[in-house]
Amino acid sequence: MPREQQLAMNYMQALTSHNYTKLKEFYDRETVFYDRTAGKKYTGEVHILSFLRRAHKGVMEYRFNLEHMYNSGSLVVMIGSYYLKGPGDQFGKPGKIIEVAVPGVTSLKLDTDKGRVREHIDLIDYQTMSDQLAPQ
Amino acid sequence: MPREQQLAMNYMQALTSHNYTKLKEFYDRETVFYDRTAGKKYTGEVHILSFLRRAHKGVMEYRFNLEHMYNSGSLVVMIGSYYLKGPGDQFGKPGKIIEVAVPGVTSLKLDTDKGRVREHIDLIDYQTMSDQLAPQ
Repeated sequence: MPREQQLAMNYMQALTSHNYTKLKEFYDRETVFYDRTAGKKYTGEVHILSFLRRAHKGVMEYRFNLEHMYNSGSLVVMIGSYYLKGPGDQFGKPGKIIEVAVPGVTSLKLDTDKGRVREHIDLIDYQTMSDQLAPQ
Repeated sequence: MPREQQLAMNYMQALTSHNYTKLKEFYDRETVFYDRTAGKKYTGEVHILSFLRRAHKGVMEYRFNLEHMYNSGSLVVMIGSYYLKGPGDQFGKPGKIIEVAVPGVTSLKLDTDKGRVREHIDLIDYQTMSDQLAPQ
């Protein structure tokens, strides 16, 4: 596996296991975290980590099921789905435990030498998430 | 199907059938065509069409096999693979007919009212393409 893909895997592991200490090492003040499908962008480790702590609060299970990964130099593309089980409060289902598996593409622009993520861009299938949430 | 996805399908049809007259209608002077994995960006219908005519010269078959499509408003994401059969000259195989099926993600930012593509971004698995070309 190319070292860019290895670095991407380590990063995704830190992200989905809510390992904020580890995650912090991947970010710096210039890192951009951009969910294009939600139209939300966070710049710098402070804002990104603050967003992730908020978004993942109380989450019980969180995984990225990788279907296909490839890279062109420092640009890594991961196609798969985000599996999440947790409190439904942030999903319009207060008091309930919700469970979703949402198709998505995450691309990472890396600084391989420094072991950093320069840009994390998400393209998430929120319609499928919404369809899955409806009957829950 | 949401009309954004319908528009995206029509556009991909024009693109892969080399229908430049039709394709021209999807672009304007501000349209950006960006292959992030190749690091190549073209702005405006003139430059984009000139690039496409060059890239697709002599191509015998060209298709996008769609595996999954979703949209968030005017942002459409298509996951699939580009199938191409044509002269190998541009692929380091002069004089040969080559055939590849390359995984890729294409995202389109649309102007749905005007029926235009504002931004076309490709993420292509060139390593797989290269692996497929090697024995040909």
